[in-house]
Amino acid sequence: MKKPAESRIDSLADRMIVPPGKKKLSIPKDFDAAWKPKSMDKKQATAALEDGIRMLAAIQDKLYAQDNYALLVIFQAMDAAGKDGAIKHVMSGINPQGCQVYSFKAPSNEELDHDYLWRCFKALPERGRIGIFNRSYYEEVLVTKVHPAIIESQKLPAHLKDKKIYQRRYREINNFEEYLHNNGIITLKFFLNVSRDEQKKRFLERIDRDEKNWKFSASDAKERSHWDEYMQAYAECIRATSTKNSPWYVIPADNKWVSRLAVAGIMYQTLKGLKLEYPTVSEQQKQALTEAKRLLEAEK
Amino acid sequence: MKKPAESRIDSLADRMIVPPGKKKLSIPKDFDAAWKPKSMDKKQATAALEDGIRMLAAIQDKLYAQDNYALLVIFQAMDAAGKDGAIKHVMSGINPQGCQVYSFKAPSNEELDHDYLWRCFKALPERGRIGIFNRSYYEEVLVTKVHPAIIESQKLPAHLKDKKIYQRRYREINNFEEYLHNNGIITLKFFLNVSRDEQKKRFLERIDRDEKNWKFSASDAKERSHWDEYMQAYAECIRATSTKNSPWYVIPADNKWVSRLAVAGIMYQTLKGLKLEYPTVSEQQKQALTEAKRLLEAEK
Repeated sequence: MKKPAESRIDSLADRMIVPPGKKKLSIPKDFDAAWKPKSMDKKQATAALEDGIRMLAAIQDKLYAQDNYALLVIFQAMDAAGKDGAIKHVMSGINPQGCQVYSFKAPSNEELDHDYLWRCFKALPERGRIGIFNRSYYEEVLVTKVHPAIIESQKLPAHLKDKKIYQRRYREINNFEEYLHNNGIITLKFFLNVSRDEQKKRFLERIDRDEKNWKFSASDAKERSHWDEYMQAYAECIRATSTKNSPWYVIPADNKWVSRLAVAGIMYQTLKGLKLEYPTVSEQQKQALTEAKRLLEAEK
Repeated sequence: MKKPAESRIDSLADRMIVPPGKKKLSIPKDFDAAWKPKSMDKKQATAALEDGIRMLAAIQDKLYAQDNYALLVIFQAMDAAGKDGAIKHVMSGINPQGCQVYSFKAPSNEELDHDYLWRCFKALPERGRIGIFNRSYYEEVLVTKVHPAIIESQKLPAHLKDKKIYQRRYREINNFEEYLHNNGIITLKFFLNVSRDEQKKRFLERIDRDEKNWKFSASDAKERSHWDEYMQAYAECIRATSTKNSPWYVIPADNKWVSRLAVAGIMYQTLKGLKLEYPTVSEQQKQALTEAKRLLEAEK
């Protein structure tokens, strides 16, 4: 039987997952950025998050010891949705030896001389590890879609910059993630769904508080004028690339405690589903251990 | 004036540092593996470690925000000295976005086709980050020295496999670390000094406890027969490569609580010495912020 905490995670996850094959998706219409669980307030959620991080740390220890699977967690969001904070608060407490975070910035010249998955391929987590992508190859079907000039400026052969590029890319991404899954790399995708109003509030805070100034650039505010186009690009991309093995979750992000709890819970649920165990040793290895013990004890 | 906690860290660090230019060094003679502070028991140390990790997390946040320096922390030790545990316990609690851990195994064929610093170069921490090397290029003046057959089998031109190879390598490493220092990458080197008896105890525990079996291989026990040669190789290497800017610390490791406290304290002390501050914004940027604020507030 499931423990109460686990069935609560399941119901959170069920609410946030985008079912594979969904015909229509509209953001924010279908997913409320301000949603919070009725059965819980912020204080209870903070305690639950602490428990969740401990559970996550324990199961990650098995992931590391077994060294077969890797977990790739992709974060995508509008600015100030809380990606950095979610990574900090959920992943602090995890053994950093089993965890790697990669933040993708605008591609460098070297990266632009390659296909768009190349730099992400290189940053994939090793087996036994949780790899976090702070932004990812999904930028190539999001920001490029809102700003077509970016694709124009890229070095892709001209005939491949046609209208069908995004349909092809969705399929390429699905195939890539299927490949990862077939090789033991489990992919989870989180869209931190912040509302336009909440983003404004957070931007103003970054401007008003000196120690937060460095996190803000005036160009961030400019991107807000493309809000609806971004939401449409997200909705199309998420609908097209949420698959059974690599699902998207749309995480309500107007309340940071909700998004952090959901992220920790869904990561835990996913690792739990792998039925990880510490490696056992073979009969032959057992004998070698017994022999090693004999030698150690016989030392003068 | 220094706070009591900080002067306590300073005195720990003073006791464990290997002064640059030290003429003679003998391990374990000069450094007691079982040393522990008189003024503290294990319980007090656990509380102090928790405080230390919080202080370290706070200062690491500035390192990340400022994005000028990186801290490279190298761990070297005999098996079962507690490298993995120290990394886990000291670094859990640090924002993983600002931290990366790299564990060096026996070099791959591709790595052997390069010079011995190549694979470490690639794994250096980005600015703003703490990078942990679990083992490092120091293996190339330690294990290779105890087992000369390893160098013999490497692809180095034959005339470079001469008697002076280790003197050259010490100098190469010093020059490499000076280069890092000149480019804002601060290097700290920890030798976790476990005693031969304590290692035996820990090996037996790994054999006796099923869930620890996977951490033990019979070849680990075999290396014990070279204990004195290893200690000599460590002493020579540490003496030759402890420099003002990239010092070695010999950390008493028979008590895990002592080594973890010392590692956290010395890392904190080092970062503190960099006088890190959150980035400030220029007058021009201030104006851009004010303009962005005006636009945000004028939105309908």
